[in-house]
Amino acid sequence: MCELLGMSANVPTDICFSFSGFLHRGGGTGPHRDGWGIAFYEAGGYRDFRDPHPSVDSPIARLICDYPIKSHVVISHIRQANVGQVRLANTHPFTREMWGRPWCYAHNGQLSHEWKQLPLSFYQPVGDTDSEHAFCWLMGELRRAFPEPPTDRDALWRYLHELCEHLRTFGVFNLLLADGESLYTYCSTKLAHITRRAPFGRASLSDAELAVNFAEHTTPNDVVSIIATEPLTDNEDWVRMEPGELLVWRDGEIQGRYQT
Amino acid sequence: MCELLGMSANVPTDICFSFSGFLHRGGGTGPHRDGWGIAFYEAGGYRDFRDPHPSVDSPIARLICDYPIKSHVVISHIRQANVGQVRLANTHPFTREMWGRPWCYAHNGQLSHEWKQLPLSFYQPVGDTDSEHAFCWLMGELRRAFPEPPTDRDALWRYLHELCEHLRTFGVFNLLLADGESLYTYCSTKLAHITRRAPFGRASLSDAELAVNFAEHTTPNDVVSIIATEPLTDNEDWVRMEPGELLVWRDGEIQGRYQT
Repeated sequence: MCELLGMSANVPTDICFSFSGFLHRGGGTGPHRDGWGIAFYEAGGYRDFRDPHPSVDSPIARLICDYPIKSHVVISHIRQANVGQVRLANTHPFTREMWGRPWCYAHNGQLSHEWKQLPLSFYQPVGDTDSEHAFCWLMGELRRAFPEPPTDRDALWRYLHELCEHLRTFGVFNLLLADGESLYTYCSTKLAHITRRAPFGRASLSDAELAVNFAEHTTPNDVVSIIATEPLTDNEDWVRMEPGELLVWRDGEIQGRYQT
Repeated sequence: MCELLGMSANVPTDICFSFSGFLHRGGGTGPHRDGWGIAFYEAGGYRDFRDPHPSVDSPIARLICDYPIKSHVVISHIRQANVGQVRLANTHPFTREMWGRPWCYAHNGQLSHEWKQLPLSFYQPVGDTDSEHAFCWLMGELRRAFPEPPTDRDALWRYLHELCEHLRTFGVFNLLLADGESLYTYCSTKLAHITRRAPFGRASLSDAELAVNFAEHTTPNDVVSIIATEPLTDNEDWVRMEPGELLVWRDGEIQGRYQT
């Protein structure tokens, strides 16, 4: 199993604190030694950093901790391989362009072998994981249904929920997906979230000896939500998502909620 | 104008030496202060590092110099903006997936305003540069002509040359393009290359006080070709490409040559 970390914020925010705890699970406090990746959306642009080596040993991961990249939306993943070799092409997050937007995807879970029958159209996998295949299928289905960006966002979100529900019939499918504005989180078995806003307090990481007083790093209007496989801090109340639940986040707030 | 740097090699090779000289042009010895990027193909996978800040000041660029990523094919670009703002979405190299392969592209030059009329199909630009628009057009035309990866490579390469010749009618169009195996270099005005093989000698950079004795870092069978806007070393004989020339590189060797 892998671990997921996502962020949605209403102001460009760095994820150094959460990422510091998260990456300790990549071969440190956790068993996820098979690569890691993180993707940032910044001012309409997109970039990701991926490494097929454990995050605790990775100089690129250390750079990300030390170099605060400020972003509205972040997706990160640490991997414990079950399908597909440990190599760069199998390292999340995956990305494809649709409607002139870079879409980014990370998956936690494992699908039964029938995933190979999910039919592909516009998008083909580069590596050989169930995760990337499911991503290509999902994006292809969205693009077939909506050749142009839909004006009816609810129709898009509802269809995305349907597609996720279908993928859940193949096995464990916890998802982080983003299009640069919205962050979509779908829970099959395990995802938790927390929204931080004024008055900001102190948080301490479960996986590393690190604490932060958010009041020192924020302004009163900031809203920052963090979504992760397991709560990252031990002194805050995280909300666990329900199986079959899709949340649509924008600017740190929940914009849409779809349930089984 | 921007600057391009490419590498094709028959063994996984790091590009630290050439990149060290090249990045000095990004705001150091050159006027290209508007971002930089570098893409690596490793064992069938792809990753790029992009930064909208000058390469001489960039902690990510320093990481790339210090952390030898070994690759068969590399594409790098430093930017002096002429079309499109300085922002991440406009920072080369650009990438799109076709036939389950990550294609990567960087452009040097400027196209006349008619580039906006180049019709797009499968691929849409994320940013607003002439370069990315031309890339999306080029990839769309290739995909229309070859919905599947062609077995006749010569047909693909000849068609790619035709498309480049068409883009050259819009202005200056020096190109680096890669599909993970082949590196394609097209010269509109300025590109030079050098192939290093046994017996390896010493090389010294034009832009920085750095020299290397390749004999200490290579084996007798290594073949490494470097392609750049301007020669990067001052003690070796670089070959300048002809306007209208497309070279196809694989494993450090020229596999195909197409001319006007």
